[in-house]
Amino acid sequence: MALSEWSLIERFFARRTPRNPATRLGIGDDCALLAVQEGHELALTSDTLVEGVHFFPNVHPEDLGHKALAVNLSDLAAMGAEPFAVTLALTLPRADADWLDGFATGFFQLAERFGVELVGGDTTHGPLTVITVQALGAVPEGLALRRSGARPGDAVFLTGILGEAGLGLRRLRDKTAAARDEAARRHLLRPEPRVAAGLALRGLASACIDVSDGLAADLGHVLGASGVGACLDWDALPLPSILRQEADSGGDWRFPLECGDDYELCFTAPQENAARIEAELAALDCPLSRIGRIEAAPGLHMLRRGIRIDMEPQGYRHF
Amino acid sequence: MALSEWSLIERFFARRTPRNPATRLGIGDDCALLAVQEGHELALTSDTLVEGVHFFPNVHPEDLGHKALAVNLSDLAAMGAEPFAVTLALTLPRADADWLDGFATGFFQLAERFGVELVGGDTTHGPLTVITVQALGAVPEGLALRRSGARPGDAVFLTGILGEAGLGLRRLRDKTAAARDEAARRHLLRPEPRVAAGLALRGLASACIDVSDGLAADLGHVLGASGVGACLDWDALPLPSILRQEADSGGDWRFPLECGDDYELCFTAPQENAARIEAELAALDCPLSRIGRIEAAPGLHMLRRGIRIDMEPQGYRHF
Repeated sequence: MALSEWSLIERFFARRTPRNPATRLGIGDDCALLAVQEGHELALTSDTLVEGVHFFPNVHPEDLGHKALAVNLSDLAAMGAEPFAVTLALTLPRADADWLDGFATGFFQLAERFGVELVGGDTTHGPLTVITVQALGAVPEGLALRRSGARPGDAVFLTGILGEAGLGLRRLRDKTAAARDEAARRHLLRPEPRVAAGLALRGLASACIDVSDGLAADLGHVLGASGVGACLDWDALPLPSILRQEADSGGDWRFPLECGDDYELCFTAPQENAARIEAELAALDCPLSRIGRIEAAPGLHMLRRGIRIDMEPQGYRHF
Repeated sequence: MALSEWSLIERFFARRTPRNPATRLGIGDDCALLAVQEGHELALTSDTLVEGVHFFPNVHPEDLGHKALAVNLSDLAAMGAEPFAVTLALTLPRADADWLDGFATGFFQLAERFGVELVGGDTTHGPLTVITVQALGAVPEGLALRRSGARPGDAVFLTGILGEAGLGLRRLRDKTAAARDEAARRHLLRPEPRVAAGLALRGLASACIDVSDGLAADLGHVLGASGVGACLDWDALPLPSILRQEADSGGDWRFPLECGDDYELCFTAPQENAARIEAELAALDCPLSRIGRIEAAPGLHMLRRGIRIDMEPQGYRHF
């Protein structure tokens, strides 16, 4: 099936995107034109997914469409920004209508839920599938959740469950177990960006990041940017029971801290904000754990079985 | 040479980018934070270059860095938007320091000239080089140059020379002639985005597009969006002398209209604005030709040797 770039975009993307009032001009010109609300800053992020590196070639296109958008909305959530527009740069080996239809379905189902409009992009031919999504959000001036605001004494929080996506990846690789643990697979393939939680944390959290490269590495970025350290409490980590059992019976207890793709928010906050944060996130049905404490001395430590262990931050290495 | 993603970005990109006052937070957090001037709209564009499709694998990395940014600035120019920020999503087979240094040099030399700050992006590993650049510009509300404003009677203009890039591509493919016509090669490898011309055209041009897929196809987009037609004057086209000679001696006269990559601006304007436009662009040393006229009836025609020829718009087909 040979379609021109334009008819591809028209058929699968231009007509299905939700509308957002910020869009003055959408797909179809040299640029999109967007209005940014007065008193707001623009938050901007971009993530690329490469076939064979970030996803298996046989991934369901609907899952891929969801994930390509979700990982970017997760970055906006980590800044406390409200998403409103997105662009999609799609490099494809062929114009396969079924694949495009599935990809667009996954992409737009998520976009619809957050009112995010697809305002532009580029469709190119190439030997393998590469997807770059760029997402735009708005945040009131001065209220963005940066990585650099953690202070000694702050509590460290984590939304959701840690290590589900890593478990899902293990399940996908170990085909004999593929039928088991559907929840973990879903977590890997269909991460849920914590947008509402990010908005609720404005003015309450002191620093925030999304956990994409593993908690140790990502919290390490917060510590580095803030010039502080942290000590985590092993017993407080929200682990899937299977990973806690593995660790307790001598398995690799670092696995959930170093596997990536969880797309949960890790954030810090002064102790006096803790009760209000817990109430706000409970109202959103967002699971929340208080997993540690910020310290003045640099470094990431783990308190496990009464022993304080020095953890060198490590995560996914791209090269 | 194995470098982590972070040290790669730090070493070659984060420290070399020019600063722009719109940037509240640059590279290094989950998102960049940008201020958009009051009374302005945000213009947003994205273009992807794929190895083996949009550039030869052995292209000089400095040329590639220039071009990846230039094609996006050209889209902003076509809207009359002033560029201020850019993101770079780079998929690379390996972290080659020499290549990265060259790419960054070409990219930042151009960014510096326009004061465009690199505010974010993503570096990923993949089997071949894929580059997606997203550029942001600002344009006063209501003054953006859209494709849809051409009206019957308007003059059609073109900046620069038509077909130089196509000629350059022919030269690169025909290695025996590689030494000849350096100007054409430079035009292909180092297109100059017409940013200043785009800004000067605000309030004067009725519609505008950049010529990336060939004049016939791109002007076709303007005609389609505006619901009009056009007749071009063959003798008025700014062709390299070699292409005019070829056409006059029975060669393919459609070639300069259908080859892409020129990154000149094609725009329309009411006749009464023509003199002022010519003066403004002359003051910028921007070559300008009045190449035809907008008509009420749809279709693109060419007046050549006294004959009116119906030209089906055709350009580069991506699939």
